[in-house]
Amino acid sequence: MSRFFSNKYDALTPYTPGEQPRDNQYIKLNTNESPYMTSELAVKYASEEAKRMRLYSDPECTDLVKKAADYFGIETDEIVFTNGSDEALNFAVMAFCDEKTGAVFPDITYGFYPVICSLNNIDYTEIPLNDDLTLNTEDYYRTGKTVFLANPNAPTGVALPLEEVERIVKENPDTVVVVDEAYVDFGTESAVGLIHEYDNLLVVQTMSKSRSLAGGRLGYAIGNRELIRDLNTLKYSTNPYNVNRMTMAAGIGAFEDDQYMKDNCRKIIETREKTKERLKALGFILTDSKANFLFAKHPMISGGDLYQKLKERNVLVRYFAKPRLMEYTRITIGTEEQMDIYIRETEDILNGVKE
Amino acid sequence: MSRFFSNKYDALTPYTPGEQPRDNQYIKLNTNESPYMTSELAVKYASEEAKRMRLYSDPECTDLVKKAADYFGIETDEIVFTNGSDEALNFAVMAFCDEKTGAVFPDITYGFYPVICSLNNIDYTEIPLNDDLTLNTEDYYRTGKTVFLANPNAPTGVALPLEEVERIVKENPDTVVVVDEAYVDFGTESAVGLIHEYDNLLVVQTMSKSRSLAGGRLGYAIGNRELIRDLNTLKYSTNPYNVNRMTMAAGIGAFEDDQYMKDNCRKIIETREKTKERLKALGFILTDSKANFLFAKHPMISGGDLYQKLKERNVLVRYFAKPRLMEYTRITIGTEEQMDIYIRETEDILNGVKE
Repeated sequence: MSRFFSNKYDALTPYTPGEQPRDNQYIKLNTNESPYMTSELAVKYASEEAKRMRLYSDPECTDLVKKAADYFGIETDEIVFTNGSDEALNFAVMAFCDEKTGAVFPDITYGFYPVICSLNNIDYTEIPLNDDLTLNTEDYYRTGKTVFLANPNAPTGVALPLEEVERIVKENPDTVVVVDEAYVDFGTESAVGLIHEYDNLLVVQTMSKSRSLAGGRLGYAIGNRELIRDLNTLKYSTNPYNVNRMTMAAGIGAFEDDQYMKDNCRKIIETREKTKERLKALGFILTDSKANFLFAKHPMISGGDLYQKLKERNVLVRYFAKPRLMEYTRITIGTEEQMDIYIRETEDILNGVKE
Repeated sequence: MSRFFSNKYDALTPYTPGEQPRDNQYIKLNTNESPYMTSELAVKYASEEAKRMRLYSDPECTDLVKKAADYFGIETDEIVFTNGSDEALNFAVMAFCDEKTGAVFPDITYGFYPVICSLNNIDYTEIPLNDDLTLNTEDYYRTGKTVFLANPNAPTGVALPLEEVERIVKENPDTVVVVDEAYVDFGTESAVGLIHEYDNLLVVQTMSKSRSLAGGRLGYAIGNRELIRDLNTLKYSTNPYNVNRMTMAAGIGAFEDDQYMKDNCRKIIETREKTKERLKALGFILTDSKANFLFAKHPMISGGDLYQKLKERNVLVRYFAKPRLMEYTRITIGTEEQMDIYIRETEDILNGVKE
């Protein structure tokens, strides 16, 4: 820290992203990327657009917004695109939290929420999940705070049915409920269809996971036009040209190539369910993940040990050195072949532990 | 504004970017883009990288940082890349301003500075430029505030010699001086060479203008490693993957293709000086712009009128409807051919006014 750094950040601990190894030695199951290539159409559009990099990108993202509005059946002023969904989440904290209105979210959820609250000097309450890592909907009624709800949750993968999400939205009429649907395409019902009924519902999605655009950085928030106007006020006050040309073009291609995404999700879901059964057979205890990852613990080995031993065998999974999470590893669903290797190595490690 | 929007933004007026018309009907001299295509190498790298969009981008921008560190003769921990230089400027306000340390900048400068101060609830002081739009260096001694100094300044184009910049840095030993060098490549000496002498100097540059990467969104800040660490703390707390893969690759190509940038800048400078003389011959009063734009007023016509009449003739320049700026238009330097048309139309408009 320099001697000039404002002491308002004294309590700030930045987010630690998952390892991004720069060689290809690992089977990379640690940051919930899709194992399937980006849509060829998205890549083609992005490559073509690179030639037009000389001119600023369209700050209103007009073509992309139109495409997305058609896709979701919403109006063009009900969506805003961001440089990854993290930017949308940060804008939501900035817009809808302050010294009067704090934030609330589960104790185990996306680790970025406490960071952006701390960054913006927002008080936040963490409500403990149940021992089995499920969530009690009633804990989020009448909170008087801005609710951040990852659905499905991360890193647990546990999903809430849409009725329960709606109930939380209804039971917080005077604060915004941010439903973070980063993993929604892997088998959870989206809340987007409710935005016209509730003026306090903001749905955040990303193209990083199901649409294989993690390295493009494209997220968006969908909600009542007044909420979106607020987020645009912040966008135009921090980074009016927040989405670059290539990514904007890739996003259009990804929406056009929707069937490709759906096919990939179907494959990932199949592999996920198969992997769940194989891990259970090995003695793992798992949440019922509806995301593109599993969250698993084993009575014989700690999360940290398993992570380390897998890494030595060139399989990279994610481990969180935090209370209540230390027993677990989070395993991104890869291809069938990748999961075969992961299972084989895991089994071998467990056999070594038993000896 | 929604009923949920925090009232901490009551006084916030977002930045208004220059028009980005979505057809090609205009000769576009309004947002200081380069008239020359992006380096073919940069485009090639970006296009190739689009195929790797499935995986997250490297949050540390390792390859790009190495390339840039070599280029500038600095260490890799003395630079941080951002999603356009606006993001670097906002990080600087967040990091180095607070309720104790306000900001100071000229009354006529990049219009984004007051926006990011207001966004972050930072008190700022605007020091009037002289009537001829030059700046008194002494006005910026011992300010007790974080200094934002665009060099050359925008929209005036007026540059300070490096000794005067250094003096301002020296005379503010206890606050950070941010030197915004967005237009430095068009003939102003950079302060990058001073970062090892002064721990309070932060230099911000962009690849948007001289390197024709406006639509890619790539900026950076260079300074003492502790300042850079502070900015990284904020980056990892707002958007760890802030630079996407294609843009990172384009940046590497742009640094490798440095001679191409230098050749383009030489051409732009030649066209600028020629256009200056032609405008003077038409009776315009101009600042001595060292940027890739001119700032000009004419006794016969207001800035707003000239802007409007040029737009009707499909020539787009920038007009600022603000006190002390209303007489002026800002004209980006285009190709020789574009400037011929601009001059011809301007002459024609003036002839019409005289009649």
